[in-house]
Amino acid sequence: MIMTFVGVPVSVIGSLMHWPSTIMFGIYCLTIIALASYMGRATESLAIIAGPRIGGLLNATFGNAVELIISIFALKAGLTGVVLASLTGSVLGNLLLVAGLSFFLGGIKFKRQTFNVYDARHNSGLLMFAVIVAFVIPEVFSMGMDEGKTISLSVGISVILIALYLAALFFKLVTHRGVYQSENSGGGGGHEEEPEWSKMKAIVILALATVAVAYVSESLVHTFETVAESFGWTELFIGVIIVAIVGNAAEHASALIFAWKNKMDIAVEIAIGSTLQIAMFVAPVLVLISLLFNEAMPLVFTLPELVAMASSVLLMVIISNDGESNWFEGLTLLAAYVIMGIGFFLL
Amino acid sequence: MIMTFVGVPVSVIGSLMHWPSTIMFGIYCLTIIALASYMGRATESLAIIAGPRIGGLLNATFGNAVELIISIFALKAGLTGVVLASLTGSVLGNLLLVAGLSFFLGGIKFKRQTFNVYDARHNSGLLMFAVIVAFVIPEVFSMGMDEGKTISLSVGISVILIALYLAALFFKLVTHRGVYQSENSGGGGGHEEEPEWSKMKAIVILALATVAVAYVSESLVHTFETVAESFGWTELFIGVIIVAIVGNAAEHASALIFAWKNKMDIAVEIAIGSTLQIAMFVAPVLVLISLLFNEAMPLVFTLPELVAMASSVLLMVIISNDGESNWFEGLTLLAAYVIMGIGFFLL
Amino acid sequence: MIMTFVGVPVSVIGSLMHWPSTIMFGIYCLTIIALASYMGRATESLAIIAGPRIGGLLNATFGNAVELIISIFALKAGLTGVVLASLTGSVLGNLLLVAGLSFFLGGIKFKRQTFNVYDARHNSGLLMFAVIVAFVIPEVFSMGMDEGKTISLSVGISVILIALYLAALFFKLVTHRGVYQSENSGGGGGHEEEPEWSKMKAIVILALATVAVAYVSESLVHTFETVAESFGWTELFIGVIIVAIVGNAAEHASALIFAWKNKMDIAVEIAIGSTLQIAMFVAPVLVLISLLFNEAMPLVFTLPELVAMASSVLLMVIISNDGESNWFEGLTLLAAYVIMGIGFFLL
Repeated sequence: MIMTFVGVPVSVIGSLMHWPSTIMFGIYCLTIIALASYMGRATESLAIIAGPRIGGLLNATFGNAVELIISIFALKAGLTGVVLASLTGSVLGNLLLVAGLSFFLGGIKFKRQTFNVYDARHNSGLLMFAVIVAFVIPEVFSMGMDEGKTISLSVGISVILIALYLAALFFKLVTHRGVYQSENSGGGGGHEEEPEWSKMKAIVILALATVAVAYVSESLVHTFETVAESFGWTELFIGVIIVAIVGNAAEHASALIFAWKNKMDIAVEIAIGSTLQIAMFVAPVLVLISLLFNEAMPLVFTLPELVAMASSVLLMVIISNDGESNWFEGLTLLAAYVIMGIGFFLL
Repeated sequence: MIMTFVGVPVSVIGSLMHWPSTIMFGIYCLTIIALASYMGRATESLAIIAGPRIGGLLNATFGNAVELIISIFALKAGLTGVVLASLTGSVLGNLLLVAGLSFFLGGIKFKRQTFNVYDARHNSGLLMFAVIVAFVIPEVFSMGMDEGKTISLSVGISVILIALYLAALFFKLVTHRGVYQSENSGGGGGHEEEPEWSKMKAIVILALATVAVAYVSESLVHTFETVAESFGWTELFIGVIIVAIVGNAAEHASALIFAWKNKMDIAVEIAIGSTLQIAMFVAPVLVLISLLFNEAMPLVFTLPELVAMASSVLLMVIISNDGESNWFEGLTLLAAYVIMGIGFFLL
Repeated sequence: MIMTFVGVPVSVIGSLMHWPSTIMFGIYCLTIIALASYMGRATESLAIIAGPRIGGLLNATFGNAVELIISIFALKAGLTGVVLASLTGSVLGNLLLVAGLSFFLGGIKFKRQTFNVYDARHNSGLLMFAVIVAFVIPEVFSMGMDEGKTISLSVGISVILIALYLAALFFKLVTHRGVYQSENSGGGGGHEEEPEWSKMKAIVILALATVAVAYVSESLVHTFETVAESFGWTELFIGVIIVAIVGNAAEHASALIFAWKNKMDIAVEIAIGSTLQIAMFVAPVLVLISLLFNEAMPLVFTLPELVAMASSVLLMVIISNDGESNWFEGLTLLAAYVIMGIGFFLL
């Protein structure tokens, strides 16, 4: 709590006074993580009020709004490679790190944890669609295309991704709301629990924390170049690993809280829902927005980025498809994350 | 109905009188689709009489007999690339378009539709075998081989594919007939229903319509070059997308009818069974037949063709493996089809 | 039995008297297979005493100890390519040949065989992790790396693989022992059955047979070059196919015995457990040991090796994930093995 009230003003002062980048890097990271815990508590209150699905959706949205804003600034600066790297990092971070830590920590407390198996399968289908179809196809097809056609293909796929994402919301919230309810759904127990904050208070805190996170995040981005030089990191490693860890701190915090309380429905919804929102909404929206700038961003990742995402999706689909988790499944996801981290560090 | 009795004679007259290709292209397509509805009704009658499995098999066979005949003519003309493209198109068309439309339309009428989960898993194993093993291996291994060895590998794999396909029929119809019956199997309800036509009448109509479709389809193929030029389509796009849509109209029509009647066992059997028949029987038979002609056809697709098929199979396996469908799963398959359509159009 | 008491002395005499390599090749192979049947019977006795999981673990360990020893000699000789090929062969041999034969032969006797579905899913997750993540990532990432970084990446991944393998043992034997017991587990029935040999006798026979197998195997390796020339086989084919069949004879023999007795829990544990031990323990240990020799071995397979393993894993995951098998699923795995055999033969 102290960190929040100290972190934000110190971040402002430090950036105005041009303190050394490596020090500011640390201050920014800690401030964001502190703010993220507020966002987590606010979202938890709202989730108790609104039920697990809307709660998960809220979490994913507020986590990714920040990401979208930062990426637009980066696109404007022509940094399409950095944007694609940080999208990759968010997918890997949510799918392997957030879900892995949730499964692992929740699994240490509880022997077997269950989550809605219908939602898990629904999410598996979307993960396959978004990454194995919509990201792989332009990668392979663009090899034989000129730049103009690659952009056309990227735009077409982006429109389809956004349309299917909206259709998925329509499916979950309208036509099939409550159809695939599992018996052990956290919804029932959640309503009995008292929310920490009232609806109004939670919304105000969530909004303020989001704005603060956005401000600090943007300052953070400008320290990357210097930090990369100081620590001998590549910009790819910072984009894929560091940005993803700090940028998804909000999801991390709240997913872990839910996992620790054995509410795996929401924890999984945050981790996988956030991945899907990045892949099916944030990424294609950025492709479309990039058309307004000088350099259009194709939906074509580098081969290591694509392979890392594709193998993560296949691993997650197999691990989550039974609607159960334990500490070892969490550790497997974390091990995959570390392997990819080493890979991007050395690249 | 009018279209059938008008379409066939008009097709004959038009081709004898050398009407413009683009007009004949439209007439041929409409005629085939009209004939396909007859084939659908005849097959439905036979399916009611023979039960869902044999019914699905009949459908797949009559849909693909046409395809086999056309492809042999194309092989004779040395068009191995076009044959591989149209095989790809049939796999994508059946797996994504036919199944997608069935799930989507059926799902609009019924909230949740179920089909035999054992059949779904059996089919998943075969899809993985045919596409992920038998098609991927020659693609990768042939990179380091000369042409002779590539053909040897293709012939070896083709013989194994056909043998396993026959073993699968033996398994389903002899050793494990009725072993994996689900409770909600359409078989029970189907026997109570009255077939539209008698067994004899259905067989005669099926045979006549098949011959007519074969005749018109062949004429259709000869219009492709001109149509491609007129509309600015590539031959690859025509082979993969247009041929597949028109050439699989029979499966489309009957699968949709069954889905609409909530007989998902048969609808799925048509879509996936037809895919498997293309991949495990039609494709390898064409490889073997091609040995008789000047130019042998290796079982080596282009990389976009292979990746499109492989990602479709992975998507379908994850979506169908629970033995349930809804409109959104259908829409996901259709969205994947559109993405691939855009890709092949631009290639 | 005769073969064992004749085979070992004949092997020694023949190698001392420098009999022709092709003859010795046959003698060695038969001797190993005869010894393997002893190892199978000893392990079966121990499995009855110790229960299915420990039994499967024992089997996998004694099967792979031989492999580890031979590979260390090969590494010392700088034959990193041969070691990677024989690792590939072991993965393919266990996953497709051992499991395929078990499913096929067991399935001929029993219509439907079941095994613990929780173990199957646990194994699926590990197969995906080991092959699709830990083997695929260095393949793709090393394309843009120099040799030093490739070795660093290989060492990092190897340490993670070994750590996760040990964590998996801890999970199965300590924290979640008996948590995922299925009702039809072979454990109950096994205890009623009388072991053929006492615990002590079984251990002594197992130890002696292992030493004998190790001695004969090493002699076998030295005949490969001559045999390859005589039969026109490539060394890759010998490494991937012949070594794997003979080298995994122990697993073959005992897995088939268990499948024939309808104890699929143990048969599957041997086949998949052995694959996992190769991929998650033997392979990374060899990478680490290779650092002591002149030529370090990176965890980078050739593309055909990697693709063959990856497609086998995907096929096995889909086939085994329902905890059921039948003869056709076995035949499918065997067909995949034959396809890969043809591929490596022609390469």
